[in-house]
Amino acid sequence: MILYDYLKTAEERCRRCFEEFPLDTIRPRELYRGTVEYFNRGGKRLRPAILMLSAGATGGKTAEESVTSAACAVELFHTFTLVHDDIIDNDPTRRGGKSVHVLVSDMFPTAEREKRDEYGRDTAILAGDMLHALSVRFMLDTAKSGISPTTVMSAVDILESECLTGVLEGEAIDTRAGLITDPTLPFSTGTRDEIIYMMQKKTGVLFSASAKIGAMLGLDTSDDMHPHVVALGEFASSCGIAFQLQDDILGVTGDEIKLGKPIGSDIREGKRTLILNNAYEKADSDGKALIERVVGSKYATDKDILAVRDLFVSTGAVEYTRRLALEYIDTALTHLKKIPASAYTEILGEWADFMARREL
Amino acid sequence: MILYDYLKTAEERCRRCFEEFPLDTIRPRELYRGTVEYFNRGGKRLRPAILMLSAGATGGKTAEESVTSAACAVELFHTFTLVHDDIIDNDPTRRGGKSVHVLVSDMFPTAEREKRDEYGRDTAILAGDMLHALSVRFMLDTAKSGISPTTVMSAVDILESECLTGVLEGEAIDTRAGLITDPTLPFSTGTRDEIIYMMQKKTGVLFSASAKIGAMLGLDTSDDMHPHVVALGEFASSCGIAFQLQDDILGVTGDEIKLGKPIGSDIREGKRTLILNNAYEKADSDGKALIERVVGSKYATDKDILAVRDLFVSTGAVEYTRRLALEYIDTALTHLKKIPASAYTEILGEWADFMARREL
Repeated sequence: MILYDYLKTAEERCRRCFEEFPLDTIRPRELYRGTVEYFNRGGKRLRPAILMLSAGATGGKTAEESVTSAACAVELFHTFTLVHDDIIDNDPTRRGGKSVHVLVSDMFPTAEREKRDEYGRDTAILAGDMLHALSVRFMLDTAKSGISPTTVMSAVDILESECLTGVLEGEAIDTRAGLITDPTLPFSTGTRDEIIYMMQKKTGVLFSASAKIGAMLGLDTSDDMHPHVVALGEFASSCGIAFQLQDDILGVTGDEIKLGKPIGSDIREGKRTLILNNAYEKADSDGKALIERVVGSKYATDKDILAVRDLFVSTGAVEYTRRLALEYIDTALTHLKKIPASAYTEILGEWADFMARREL
Repeated sequence: MILYDYLKTAEERCRRCFEEFPLDTIRPRELYRGTVEYFNRGGKRLRPAILMLSAGATGGKTAEESVTSAACAVELFHTFTLVHDDIIDNDPTRRGGKSVHVLVSDMFPTAEREKRDEYGRDTAILAGDMLHALSVRFMLDTAKSGISPTTVMSAVDILESECLTGVLEGEAIDTRAGLITDPTLPFSTGTRDEIIYMMQKKTGVLFSASAKIGAMLGLDTSDDMHPHVVALGEFASSCGIAFQLQDDILGVTGDEIKLGKPIGSDIREGKRTLILNNAYEKADSDGKALIERVVGSKYATDKDILAVRDLFVSTGAVEYTRRLALEYIDTALTHLKKIPASAYTEILGEWADFMARREL
């Protein structure tokens, strides 16, 4: 599949661009470490890839090759949100290693536990801030490839306005759910539309922004209403929702080893997924009672988790979510058809498919 | 004094510019509130003022009048760092009101204490991120006044590279001091140069960046090595250190009501100030023992705090710090002389004086 080769190329180009950037002025060492860690661990680089492919689809090979620092910028923006997200969610791991706040705490093994945990959290706040700034700086650097300053300024503006505002809103709404003390509330009020809305904010906007920025750089225009910019933005946004739906499916049916996290952890954490919402709607009274007792409970046993997981499958909630993800991909592909066919649109088609069918 | 009239004008112009910016897309309401709160509470607007005055000193009246959104940008950048700083330092108050994390927690009085405090902190992280992005967006908006895009891009770059890197380094070093468990260490190792270095990072760089950006916008140049840009940057950096030294002096000798915080709180918190360092060096063995026992101790009585405060004065440490602040102002004024004299350089001279003599 050409997609995999392309993702490999995107990864190599981004890594080289990141390594060449002067980061050695970042001090102290734990702030430097926290800043570079997630990027250096690698990742699927889906956001850089969609940006580069969108530049190629609208501006051809030369354009595609001149947007590497913009591609790094969206990946850095993504890691900035991950670092802050991990503090907020108290997540101990990320991308196969310790999350930044844990990593920094562990750099001071002789200090008091409470103090070093606090310093780990504090440094992670600052490391996220640094990544946010680096994202802007990498985007500005795109002007060095000869793209006009007004286009580059619009690219920064998209990242910092609609994209950032959306991501933070999604994050805040998601976190706010933790304030709710009535355990049945997340099921009864979390309607399909509300859940999709949050996915659109937390995940969709950055995919959409990456594609739009790629297209604007490819066309060298600051007009974000150009039909190809709009079409690629819609394409990526739909793919982003499919990506998130598939994420929730993998959380129920995926391979523990491939994913690097225990299956059912979403159930234990009480994550408000569409699968949960749909299963609750369809379940009989025994099923509803099971969900209310197990989901989000610290006292849930492994057997309880397995029972809920089985219910997710038997009610058809997993299948329902899978079909919905494929519908989003269909929608995405109608938008993609508005772009003149090329090698790039072909890979974009594969990319869309991958978003809904990936196994990790 | 014309300075006070000027600061009032700066305040009014910034406030109008901020009010006209479309912020109503920020949701949920607590994220919106956390974002606008510190700006709306007002402040001395010293950073906007130095930016506007530097633009005026290099580009005249037209330039000075066209940089209001850049002036807002540096104030927003400042509030972004304050919001994150307040989480890190667990500060409950700021600018005469609750700090953002406390404010948000108090918006959910019926939720469990621990949960709403956590949500307050989480939302404050996000509000800081929003302010950081708004700072970039306001800076980009400067291009609407006809300043060339390459100049505006350089202005964003200065804020996001040397300025941000410096502020975060200063913040991290300052916070890291809390990890030190040996109570005598802050006195014996905190030499004058190290303390000044941290002040330069935490406070000096944003003053310096504000002046440099003002001058670059005034000259409409992206050359940050232009002699007037460099001179105004050095001017503001020296003033910034004098400002911070005066801050520490006010923490010992100031008026509780004007400052809005109890005198001696720096002593109770164990803040590593130059006054403390100098007093410890000059004190006899009884004085050293007093400092070691009281500074940074939660068990210190009001009488203890007063005794340390008296020691700060009797050893001459306060006077030493005051003289040093005035030396920094002298240095600042030599840099200011490199700029052709105008009504703007005159106010800048007053501004320098204010930085070292202010009483709040």
